[in-house]
Amino acid sequence: MDFLKELEKRSEAVNEALDELLPAAGAYPPAIHEAMRYSLFAGGKRLRPVLALATAEMLGGSPGDIMPAACALELIHTYSLIHDDLPAMDNDDLRRGIPTCHKKFGEAMAILAGDALLTLAFGLITLCPARGRITPERLITVVREVASAAGTSGLIGGQVADIGSAADTVDGETLAYIHRCKTGAMYRVSVRTGAILSGSGDEDLERLTEYAEHLGMAFQITDDILDIVGDEKKMGKPAGSDLKNNKATYPALYGMDEARRMASLEAGLAVRCLDAYGEKAGFLRELARFVVERSH
Amino acid sequence: MDFLKELEKRSEAVNEALDELLPAAGAYPPAIHEAMRYSLFAGGKRLRPVLALATAEMLGGSPGDIMPAACALELIHTYSLIHDDLPAMDNDDLRRGIPTCHKKFGEAMAILAGDALLTLAFGLITLCPARGRITPERLITVVREVASAAGTSGLIGGQVADIGSAADTVDGETLAYIHRCKTGAMYRVSVRTGAILSGSGDEDLERLTEYAEHLGMAFQITDDILDIVGDEKKMGKPAGSDLKNNKATYPALYGMDEARRMASLEAGLAVRCLDAYGEKAGFLRELARFVVERSH
Repeated sequence: MDFLKELEKRSEAVNEALDELLPAAGAYPPAIHEAMRYSLFAGGKRLRPVLALATAEMLGGSPGDIMPAACALELIHTYSLIHDDLPAMDNDDLRRGIPTCHKKFGEAMAILAGDALLTLAFGLITLCPARGRITPERLITVVREVASAAGTSGLIGGQVADIGSAADTVDGETLAYIHRCKTGAMYRVSVRTGAILSGSGDEDLERLTEYAEHLGMAFQITDDILDIVGDEKKMGKPAGSDLKNNKATYPALYGMDEARRMASLEAGLAVRCLDAYGEKAGFLRELARFVVERSH
Repeated sequence: MDFLKELEKRSEAVNEALDELLPAAGAYPPAIHEAMRYSLFAGGKRLRPVLALATAEMLGGSPGDIMPAACALELIHTYSLIHDDLPAMDNDDLRRGIPTCHKKFGEAMAILAGDALLTLAFGLITLCPARGRITPERLITVVREVASAAGTSGLIGGQVADIGSAADTVDGETLAYIHRCKTGAMYRVSVRTGAILSGSGDEDLERLTEYAEHLGMAFQITDDILDIVGDEKKMGKPAGSDLKNNKATYPALYGMDEARRMASLEAGLAVRCLDAYGEKAGFLRELARFVVERSH
């Protein structure tokens, strides 16, 4: 399997669905829809929706039917980036090589565009057709889990701990907490969304949740590493921005070599969780290797 | 019926439920939970949850079981106030007589507290027990409708149009659009939440939706009036803040007498929608009168 080609194909399918599911840029009031689309289509690998879809595929679910829920995960990711970039937060001017949402549309519109993406995300989940293994009960479970992953015990909790922690005061435990919340929770719920809407039993759900947790950690440690050594052009933002923002990172806390070792270890642990699925887990296995080997 | 006492009793029940459903102020990370609770418990009449509960009661539903969904409506209302007050938006220092969320906790935490309340709202809807007339299908419908009412065709759309419209350029149609979105959509979905989760048929749903639309309009026109003539102490914010912010309002566009007449007319139309329900609609009928007769 040519993994990168396969990933691109899947990301492209997500992009097409996002384009269909988002209000048109010209829909009234146009300013907000333009801002939402600007940030949503600024690039990105669509890893969260791809994870949900690949999990459903592996478990014999209906990736096509869960697409709206998969897209919801990307909307939440994008909203969190828009709000994180705001002057009151990380105050970043560039994201994926172009001006951040507030630089382009002003702060008020960036706040509202983030709010609107978050709100629409929950609406999208309800658009999955309740048929086959997708039942209304399971959709309700997904709404509950996504709200929890995106909330103060997940994404938002991680951001709060992050902005409250200067690099020089953070210990390993706090850093792991931040990453588990900020990145891990959304990876975790992405895989779980795919599994739950495929009618997965408890055993599958547990195994795949563990896969997602290791994958999220591998991804985030690698992100920390790439912020220091990555190619600015490919990353679309200045290298060293964590350093500039006095952010706690794995390389800062453990050194570069140890951080690399930790990322590999997490990826390996993720792959091991897939043993029971043999060939069918090919894509998810490659994905775990990809997140630590990528250059941006 | 002593309406004010009855309203207070119902608001108090909502407050108790909110206190139970929100993470404790000390829950990790405490900063965010403190900010969420600060704004949520700063006062407010809880009209949206009370509307949902009273509608359910009138239709023979289970107000107790729909309480989490009713509370969700208040969380969304509070989030919208926190974000509207931000310096990039209306830049208000006071709300309900105390410092606004960003004045008290800083801008970053206010943005995140708003995000967190919005996120938690969708989680709360899923906590309504699926029993009696509350089915998973109906809960999914409520999630979809709330996302729509809070999104760019409702609450957020109204706010976008509002910040894009200076008072002197707004015509009656745009002003009605802003109010229909900013206030109306949430009133509408509050009544519909109560009706849908009580298994209401199409006819009831249509009639009560119309009630809610007139009620929302009556409420908003009265809000505009109170901003000019209201008692600052009771309102908890300086009178004339709409004028200061160059906001379009009904009195500014139509004059004070005509605005009062329009508010009364809307309240009357709301009451007429309840004709079919006789005695059982007593509270909703009084509520429509209350929103135009209140002094704050």
